[in-house]
Amino acid sequence: MTTTSDTTARSTATLPAGTLRGLMTLADATGRFAMIAVDQRPPIFQAIARHGGRRPEDVTYDEISLVKGVLVEVLAPHATAVLCDPVWTHPHHATAVPGRVGLLSTLEDHEFALVDGERRSQAIADWTVSKIKRSGAQGVKVLAWDRRDASEATRAHQDAFIADAGRACREHELPFVLELLVYPFPGEDATSAAYARAKPERVLESVRHYAEERFGVDLLKLEFPADLKYTREFASGAFDGVAREHVYDLGEVEAHLAHLDSVASVPWVILSAGVGPREFALNVELGCAAGASGFLAGRAVWWDALDAYPDVDAMRERLARLSVPYLQSLTASVARGTPWTEHRRFGGAVGIAGASSTWFETYR
Amino acid sequence: MTTTSDTTARSTATLPAGTLRGLMTLADATGRFAMIAVDQRPPIFQAIARHGGRRPEDVTYDEISLVKGVLVEVLAPHATAVLCDPVWTHPHHATAVPGRVGLLSTLEDHEFALVDGERRSQAIADWTVSKIKRSGAQGVKVLAWDRRDASEATRAHQDAFIADAGRACREHELPFVLELLVYPFPGEDATSAAYARAKPERVLESVRHYAEERFGVDLLKLEFPADLKYTREFASGAFDGVAREHVYDLGEVEAHLAHLDSVASVPWVILSAGVGPREFALNVELGCAAGASGFLAGRAVWWDALDAYPDVDAMRERLARLSVPYLQSLTASVARGTPWTEHRRFGGAVGIAGASSTWFETYR
Repeated sequence: MTTTSDTTARSTATLPAGTLRGLMTLADATGRFAMIAVDQRPPIFQAIARHGGRRPEDVTYDEISLVKGVLVEVLAPHATAVLCDPVWTHPHHATAVPGRVGLLSTLEDHEFALVDGERRSQAIADWTVSKIKRSGAQGVKVLAWDRRDASEATRAHQDAFIADAGRACREHELPFVLELLVYPFPGEDATSAAYARAKPERVLESVRHYAEERFGVDLLKLEFPADLKYTREFASGAFDGVAREHVYDLGEVEAHLAHLDSVASVPWVILSAGVGPREFALNVELGCAAGASGFLAGRAVWWDALDAYPDVDAMRERLARLSVPYLQSLTASVARGTPWTEHRRFGGAVGIAGASSTWFETYR
Repeated sequence: MTTTSDTTARSTATLPAGTLRGLMTLADATGRFAMIAVDQRPPIFQAIARHGGRRPEDVTYDEISLVKGVLVEVLAPHATAVLCDPVWTHPHHATAVPGRVGLLSTLEDHEFALVDGERRSQAIADWTVSKIKRSGAQGVKVLAWDRRDASEATRAHQDAFIADAGRACREHELPFVLELLVYPFPGEDATSAAYARAKPERVLESVRHYAEERFGVDLLKLEFPADLKYTREFASGAFDGVAREHVYDLGEVEAHLAHLDSVASVPWVILSAGVGPREFALNVELGCAAGASGFLAGRAVWWDALDAYPDVDAMRERLARLSVPYLQSLTASVARGTPWTEHRRFGGAVGIAGASSTWFETYR
């Protein structure tokens, strides 16, 4: 009997077969992510409403679906995965996401319950992880608003919402991509120096909490744990022409990133959360240097092209001329990031859980 | 309200979301298939057994898994999809199928019940379409032996086996890839002129039967409906140096292919079934000219490299030097095939079934 090391030497780190395969389909061949989000809702309603001076609630289903379709059509071929919503995008435009590109689906409703200024998340009615799995999507994204200083009731609600999603993802073996966003309480100004100063600690505490194993997260989608506009080096208006006081310097921001990486017990990517392209490029560069495995970005990539609405051809042209090269430059910078398989959770190689000669029998 | 044709003009041909996404992940961006099979069992047992003059039943699990792993490792990056078995390949080597390459899983056991010389298929014990879906594979392949002149009991058994698989695939929205193989009854010689003469009609009748909608097939994996070694043009030993009588000419073979295409009510690909590389290249060329959407091939691509076993490095070297370029030349010739979306079942565009503003609610 010839027993070879090739088949008997197994990596110790494992994931369930479907979760592992899902993560592979979302990443590039090296294990890095360059993912595009088109699941935004209020921002896209607002961009369309600017045309004709309408209110966001007056834009039509067809307008929203059209805009999202153009984003998918032009950008998807240049991404490793595309995040779609199930209302306007998936049913009409998932066919424009090439088969070699991963497909992520959004679980949460953009409307949240506001209780004493605190945000409580909910899933889109009648949209489930089971449906996402059946539809052929390769991962589930859940955005959860979080303030660790919210009331116990709100924190318990968010914990239950996230744990439920995690359980369902594990049941169906779909990667669970958890997006965490801190938000301003009433009276707080998210653009203020005070908010910028408090941000690193708020983001870190949020990540520390939801990185706990009981939530079942496979990939964290995180905001940059600082506001670069308030760093000494960029406070003179580097990104938007507006001069501000500075509340930290780049060295401190890098320390926050290192801290973030140390509390992220699973691989993580950077989200764009409405910052401009120049600032986001730096977020990605610094994030990847600190251990991020790439990005999952929306507005930083395609926002400017929406100015052309309702001229769809002009939108397409701007996306092709400006957004695609920008996306490619972000993707190039991700090469400095950490492949998700090399995150300390895995350490370089990930195998299928329970792999053996009887796996096909024991696999539930 | 701005209603645009982009989102309201829908194609009429549709597939369930998961089935459609699955087919997209198995094909290239143009809708053509260049798929590799490594799920073979007896042929691989035999190839390994040649080393040391053993019997096929004496080769070990680790040897088989090792050989299949080398095939996946070298060939998968050059295919649009890879067909794996769940016993030796999937648990250890699915991680070597790049995320951008589709993953197919085999449902049927290689052992079939032999009843009065007739073959009755069965699934691998404890391996199911539900497990295949959970594991992240993007399609299900079922090989069914078929002789339309078998007994009614055998035909009923095969019908039930195939219909069951089709129902499960539809339930989980996984593409159902049905492979049909005619086989010799006791006393028949599959290499004889008589067998070659009877083959076109046997293949055609088999396809005609299982292409019926009630079986739920999404893609047919078909054998070439003739034996080119018995054509007038190639009967002098063009493929293997053996001269034979001829039972048809190339024009007749092309007519059989046209007939095959006319009874294939769903897209189809050509399988290699143990013919040599030169003959298979012509099978693919003629098949694609007649309407096939590509190939799903095993031995024609990698068989010769197995001669090097147990020298694994030599196997790898032969695969890289001989099999990869051969696979690439087959893939180039597939460009003349019919994109699956342009099969007359679909007519150029396929949408998601039930796509509408309420799809996310009504999708079961």
